[in-house]
Amino acid sequence: MSESAQIGVTGLAVMGSNLARNFARHGHTVAVHNRTDAKTRALMDEFGHEGNFLPGYTAEEFVASLEKPRRVVIMVKAGGPTDAVIDQLAELMEPGDILVDGGNAHYADTRRREAALRERGINFVGTGISGGEEGALNGPSIMPGGSAEAYASLGPLLESISAHVDGVPCCTHVGADGAGHFVKMVHNGIEYADMQLIAEAYDLLRRGAGMTPAEISAVFTEWNTGDLESFLIEITAQVLAHTTAEGEPFVDVVLDQAEQKGTGRWTVQIALDLGVPVSGIAEAVFARALSGHADQRAAARSLPGPVADGTVDRAGFVEDVRKALYASKVVAYAQGFDEITAGAAEYGWDIDRGAMATIWRGGCIIRARFLNRIKEAYDRDPQLPSLLVDEYFAAAVADGQDAWRNVVSTAARIGVPTPGFSSALAYYDGLRAERLPAALIQGLRDLFGAHTYRRVDREGTFHTRWSSDRAEVPGD
Amino acid sequence: MSESAQIGVTGLAVMGSNLARNFARHGHTVAVHNRTDAKTRALMDEFGHEGNFLPGYTAEEFVASLEKPRRVVIMVKAGGPTDAVIDQLAELMEPGDILVDGGNAHYADTRRREAALRERGINFVGTGISGGEEGALNGPSIMPGGSAEAYASLGPLLESISAHVDGVPCCTHVGADGAGHFVKMVHNGIEYADMQLIAEAYDLLRRGAGMTPAEISAVFTEWNTGDLESFLIEITAQVLAHTTAEGEPFVDVVLDQAEQKGTGRWTVQIALDLGVPVSGIAEAVFARALSGHADQRAAARSLPGPVADGTVDRAGFVEDVRKALYASKVVAYAQGFDEITAGAAEYGWDIDRGAMATIWRGGCIIRARFLNRIKEAYDRDPQLPSLLVDEYFAAAVADGQDAWRNVVSTAARIGVPTPGFSSALAYYDGLRAERLPAALIQGLRDLFGAHTYRRVDREGTFHTRWSSDRAEVPGD
Repeated sequence: MSESAQIGVTGLAVMGSNLARNFARHGHTVAVHNRTDAKTRALMDEFGHEGNFLPGYTAEEFVASLEKPRRVVIMVKAGGPTDAVIDQLAELMEPGDILVDGGNAHYADTRRREAALRERGINFVGTGISGGEEGALNGPSIMPGGSAEAYASLGPLLESISAHVDGVPCCTHVGADGAGHFVKMVHNGIEYADMQLIAEAYDLLRRGAGMTPAEISAVFTEWNTGDLESFLIEITAQVLAHTTAEGEPFVDVVLDQAEQKGTGRWTVQIALDLGVPVSGIAEAVFARALSGHADQRAAARSLPGPVADGTVDRAGFVEDVRKALYASKVVAYAQGFDEITAGAAEYGWDIDRGAMATIWRGGCIIRARFLNRIKEAYDRDPQLPSLLVDEYFAAAVADGQDAWRNVVSTAARIGVPTPGFSSALAYYDGLRAERLPAALIQGLRDLFGAHTYRRVDREGTFHTRWSSDRAEVPGD
Repeated sequence: MSESAQIGVTGLAVMGSNLARNFARHGHTVAVHNRTDAKTRALMDEFGHEGNFLPGYTAEEFVASLEKPRRVVIMVKAGGPTDAVIDQLAELMEPGDILVDGGNAHYADTRRREAALRERGINFVGTGISGGEEGALNGPSIMPGGSAEAYASLGPLLESISAHVDGVPCCTHVGADGAGHFVKMVHNGIEYADMQLIAEAYDLLRRGAGMTPAEISAVFTEWNTGDLESFLIEITAQVLAHTTAEGEPFVDVVLDQAEQKGTGRWTVQIALDLGVPVSGIAEAVFARALSGHADQRAAARSLPGPVADGTVDRAGFVEDVRKALYASKVVAYAQGFDEITAGAAEYGWDIDRGAMATIWRGGCIIRARFLNRIKEAYDRDPQLPSLLVDEYFAAAVADGQDAWRNVVSTAARIGVPTPGFSSALAYYDGLRAERLPAALIQGLRDLFGAHTYRRVDREGTFHTRWSSDRAEVPGD
């Protein structure tokens, strides 16, 4: 027992096991532990040769095998199981040690846990880890929160196992306490929006322009050589090209009911609390929910409306859809970054938004060439009020604008649902509007509820005595 | 002190005071109480002559003046103040007594309070009361939850003071524990959507067709004689007709930043938890949020895009907008009623949806002729899976469909934001779609996260080994 480990991983299901292997492959000595011994033994038997592992068959043995300050990554189910493991380990740890939660925790739970452990002198780091099982093994995107002191000790280890793009690790200190899990949540929300937009593009080309999955796969392959280059575009081409053993297009045999695991929903719920309009993410979450309501859909299938018959002329339309997809994607990312901005303001996190774009360039589901453009935008103006007003994105959206409007307009006419494209366009037109009809809403609210209003021409709040003399009085 | 009161009201701000006066005007003896005496004395001085009031200057005196079982309506701020009053009064009450919270509580708080008080034998009734100050005085729409036993004692009193339409009170027992506050929450969410749709219609006529507020007011007045007849349409005509002392259109001097008080947001957050796509309500909440981001809007005002110049030919367009408004409104209500359905299923509430439409016909902000159609739809089929598939609404939407598509398409082209109209149309087209691109999303999820998928042609879940032989294997 003379050797001690730089890092420990507890919870050896696939994600935890792969993360431990990733650490070992990078030359770190890794203490490994699981609630039940079987998984620990399986890891040692199957992958023990890959590096230096120190198996711990009790929590005590596990903790004792770590160098100080101890660094332990917890990879168990979010919620109660995470709390249980934290409680058990914290008992065995000392002030200055570092406990890392790499699960999909809600950032509010992370804030609670961080505060409680700080009282005991233990550094708690909630970290987002994106990239799934494959990413955990070969290089994920890592979004750690917690204190700067904890990152000084832990960061180099995490950076060593993260994905790298152009030599830059896809891992950086996000901000205090729950900042890492917050940013991971928004990342997932953006992922929902991105996938919904891709799905709408496919639907328009399939039902609108009458193209086959194979033809559309070729279109996505082509798109992946330009501005849209990204992991999601690449795998869309793969999925659309895939045929079943019976020779049918794979996408046609898959039940069209999308599922979800909750982080997209959280992203929208928190955005509502923060007052950030993330309509693109919301429409994506709702589109999945709608798809799953099989009974309603069965009852509604006979409702009247145009049936897209593939007669949209594909010549210009394919390029229009590409431009609409890109413009809508810019809006979705703008909204997501707005939520990060608002979360940072609410919780006092000092988040470098350009750095978030940088660490998402590799390892994670939304990795894309596009993220370099976001980094550059925040380099040009670290206080950028919206990605949409950055010179590059403004020009990109301007360039695609006629196409975008044509696609939304065509979709409405032919009856193909494009909640993502439409809502992105409505957001864009709302943001740039000289005047919004919100003024009318304020007038109505004052009339029925005396909620008062402000004026464009003077300070203060006002109320009109609607039911008597209609005079304007101070709104107090 | 020989006389005793049938009902007590504590919390005598305007809502509570007006509710107490409403009870008194209907011949009930009303015990009144407030944390500080001043409000109680003010009520007695100013309105004591309107009926039989028994002022209580201490909680003990207040409770002692009530006949048994005691019935007390609490009209204080939601949250901590409500809990404080409940704690104080519960101490003084006996098993069988009834405590009513008429504030804007979150239904989850109501469920918690109801469970705690039930332990002590006290009936707790959380009730939605809609109609603002004027409704509280002259007849609100009342949505009481709680036990059937409590309603048997309390209901006749509430029904007597509620609004009445065609002789039917706008008050009925909604369901157990938090059902009343839940339904009130959804009511408010629908109100958000309704107002947003009206605002979009106004914006299209103003900026798209170049009409003046006065001209648009006349249009709304005309619309109020048909299917759209409702309080909100009526007051929209009033607000648009109003001019300032300086002779300007009132709507033009109001700052175009809409505010909100939270129930719209709750409606969306809970819908997300329940998996109900309430995109119309969400877009309405987000549109208000967007309007309030003054800094972003200032930075985005120069973004390129068409500027509506009033050149849309108003002849057919006004009628198209009317039809689009009606169709979108049907979708918003369909989504709201879906949330009620889902809430009822989740919490075991036996909610008569037709009765909810009935009690919203008077007293509340969304009161409308339209609600009779909803009642009739649920009479035809109490298990109706969506309002949209009811024969009346399906026909109404079919009739307005070309107009609806034209309006959404025109708005995209001329750059007027219509998040509500567009998202309603996308929802409609999604619900009736034979196939949705959700199948592609499931394929992508299986590829990057091994999340599995179901098939259209056989039972079970499946996974494709994307990174090896692409064979399909069972999903777990």
